[in-house]
Amino acid sequence: MSNQLIAIIGGTGDQGKGLALRWAKKGFEIIIGSRDRERARAAAAAARAMLKASGADNVNLEGATNADAAAAAQIIVLTIPFAAQIATLKEIREKIKAGSLIVDVTVPLEPAVGGKPTRILGVWAGSAAQQCRELAPEGVQVVSAFQNVGAEALISLDREVECDVIVCGDDKEAKQSLRPLVAAIPGCRYIDGGPLANSRTVEAITALLIGFNIRYKTHTGLRITGIE
Amino acid sequence: MSNQLIAIIGGTGDQGKGLALRWAKKGFEIIIGSRDRERARAAAAAARAMLKASGADNVNLEGATNADAAAAAQIIVLTIPFAAQIATLKEIREKIKAGSLIVDVTVPLEPAVGGKPTRILGVWAGSAAQQCRELAPEGVQVVSAFQNVGAEALISLDREVECDVIVCGDDKEAKQSLRPLVAAIPGCRYIDGGPLANSRTVEAITALLIGFNIRYKTHTGLRITGIE
Repeated sequence: MSNQLIAIIGGTGDQGKGLALRWAKKGFEIIIGSRDRERARAAAAAARAMLKASGADNVNLEGATNADAAAAAQIIVLTIPFAAQIATLKEIREKIKAGSLIVDVTVPLEPAVGGKPTRILGVWAGSAAQQCRELAPEGVQVVSAFQNVGAEALISLDREVECDVIVCGDDKEAKQSLRPLVAAIPGCRYIDGGPLANSRTVEAITALLIGFNIRYKTHTGLRITGIE
Repeated sequence: MSNQLIAIIGGTGDQGKGLALRWAKKGFEIIIGSRDRERARAAAAAARAMLKASGADNVNLEGATNADAAAAAQIIVLTIPFAAQIATLKEIREKIKAGSLIVDVTVPLEPAVGGKPTRILGVWAGSAAQQCRELAPEGVQVVSAFQNVGAEALISLDREVECDVIVCGDDKEAKQSLRPLVAAIPGCRYIDGGPLANSRTVEAITALLIGFNIRYKTHTGLRITGIE
């Protein structure tokens, strides 16, 4: 449990909703953000109902516009389609408080340009996370994480999520601050993924896992072996 | 056990030696290839001694030049540094019999140009495996596999290798023919990685794992969860 407010930008999508559910269940204070305030509020109400049905009362989970959510939070989690990443960051960047942390979950999947989810696009900055850093305001750290954690696994609140969370970033302390958010999801494990540039590979792994999901008709995740 | 002869091109390196040991131990017929015939023979003799010490008698493991090894084999496994991949393929391509299978294990790690093993180079063809296919003779299938399996784990013959083997290739049958080679290594599991182009990501994962090895001072591997 933390007193930090977490904004989930694009939180009406499956990945954002899944993270919101898991974190709210463990007592984190969450704002689901959307371009549309009413959609955000409806998503928050639906999430509260799901949590209540699963036995979690007194959760702290509201909805707001992306901009209002970003302005209020200390941790801003981006769970948006790649096609919307630049526009969303331009929209919210002025609102983000200095000292905040952006957690980029964006993956440059090919559907952004009408392609396949088993493929990723080349990003000029190197990765979606590095593109995020280019657009982030000064004084705001950017880390990437949670890209490989499937939305279906997150939303199945009674099940463990069998997936390690590889956290990439150039500031050790910023990365470490994600430990409680990873630990809040049963079955997830924090793995230090090295510099933010390594997000290139972590993002690509998401497309690889989507391919496994299709070929094996299942929901896959990732474990790194050999780390105690 | 198989009657197919396996050539391990660049088999005097750690990765090639490790695969040779594991496969020879299970009764596969192996030729370790090297540019230098005497080095290849010495490596084969050392490997036979290691296998004998581990209780494996009657192994079939010899040494030869890369070209002779490639000419003799039905399965040609490339375990060479990226910097040597093009030259080696040009050297052996005329020798490879039609109907053979090339298993590319090459990873375009940055040390090929004096850089870090936690980074990979961009390859014009898309990946080392796709570069291999460009240089492979007609009528020879190319798959990629075993890049993420650490040499240390392979060489520790009394231990299981905790790593899934993601096999990429454009021909389903060619991929399937690797199943016995994966199953021969205790702890390894065959995973269909989709088309050869997906090797981009599988190769990049090797650099990511090397980063984990450095940060966590251990030997890491990879498991895909959610596949029975």
